[in-house]
Amino acid sequence: MTERLGKQLDFILELDKLKNIQRRSYVADSSAHEDDAQHSWHLALMAMLLSEYAKEKVDVLHVIKMVLIHDAVEIDAGDTYAYDKEGNVTKREREEKAADRIFRILPEEQAQELRALWEEFEAAATPEAKFARTLDNVQPVLLNDITKGRSWKEHDVKADQVLERNRITREGSDVLWNHVQCLVDKNQKLGNLK
Amino acid sequence: MTERLGKQLDFILELDKLKNIQRRSYVADSSAHEDDAQHSWHLALMAMLLSEYAKEKVDVLHVIKMVLIHDAVEIDAGDTYAYDKEGNVTKREREEKAADRIFRILPEEQAQELRALWEEFEAAATPEAKFARTLDNVQPVLLNDITKGRSWKEHDVKADQVLERNRITREGSDVLWNHVQCLVDKNQKLGNLK
Repeated sequence: MTERLGKQLDFILELDKLKNIQRRSYVADSSAHEDDAQHSWHLALMAMLLSEYAKEKVDVLHVIKMVLIHDAVEIDAGDTYAYDKEGNVTKREREEKAADRIFRILPEEQAQELRALWEEFEAAATPEAKFARTLDNVQPVLLNDITKGRSWKEHDVKADQVLERNRITREGSDVLWNHVQCLVDKNQKLGNLK
Repeated sequence: MTERLGKQLDFILELDKLKNIQRRSYVADSSAHEDDAQHSWHLALMAMLLSEYAKEKVDVLHVIKMVLIHDAVEIDAGDTYAYDKEGNVTKREREEKAADRIFRILPEEQAQELRALWEEFEAAATPEAKFARTLDNVQPVLLNDITKGRSWKEHDVKADQVLERNRITREGSDVLWNHVQCLVDKNQKLGNLK
């Protein structure tokens, strides 16, 4: 085995840890919390099927690459809940440190590529990153809707917070933003969201 | 919401069930069985990082699309263990029926696209399908190696069976095939594989 392949396989096995990082969302049948690997797969599937709704034309492979690795930093930094104010203050610092360690497991040029993909996702400035962020925000809304707002109720989340969190959704897709608004409205009426 | 978006979201939520389909493999820290969604994400990550080892030049997006949906049929047909002889006799029939139902949830042309991707994966004839199958076979070997052959031991798997199963790995990648041979050899010496 070459040193290069060794580094690539080390990284692939390091990222296996994402299968153990629990999110606040539940899977659609409400039987368990979703984990980061499942979530990343779900976003990649959405990118593959919903790219026609991106506000600007996107390179689908680029979007998929971004969503596949967007949570890698959580191996060290943990999952910071979207509605955890305190956690979000220190999030960037914790995640930067994690990125420094995790991506460097790879051979140099792949380490740089993945770090750049993660930075692009975080900055949310390119059409691909905006659309990837849209998917990342819409997916938990879909899961909350189908589980009767289970995770929202458990964390006392308010409609305003979901809409504020989805501010960025509008920049990535008008169609998906409209859908989020409908779901928030519906779940507010049902009492699943305050 | 348009009828089209409705169908797409129905499919995306239907595929959420892959998060509940357990495989025989364990995740790298041996804490739990892997599920189909985690497995599919892991293969997509491998496709993104290891395509340089494909025997023939591959379209990475095409490989990723295939691995993201290759297990969708297991929602109805269940996971058939690679070393379950009986199960593999009826596998094709069960999976065809599942494909008929599941992909048709999508709008017509996307249903056709995904059905074609699945058939292509099954046929293992194109460079992309061969490489996707290689990844699908190599990934459980990596997980077995790191968990000291836990799943192999539990199912009394023999080295010959792993090599036979990986026959197709050779067609997708010489480098990864060599690596599988090394890992099988190593685990045989360690007594993790008979």
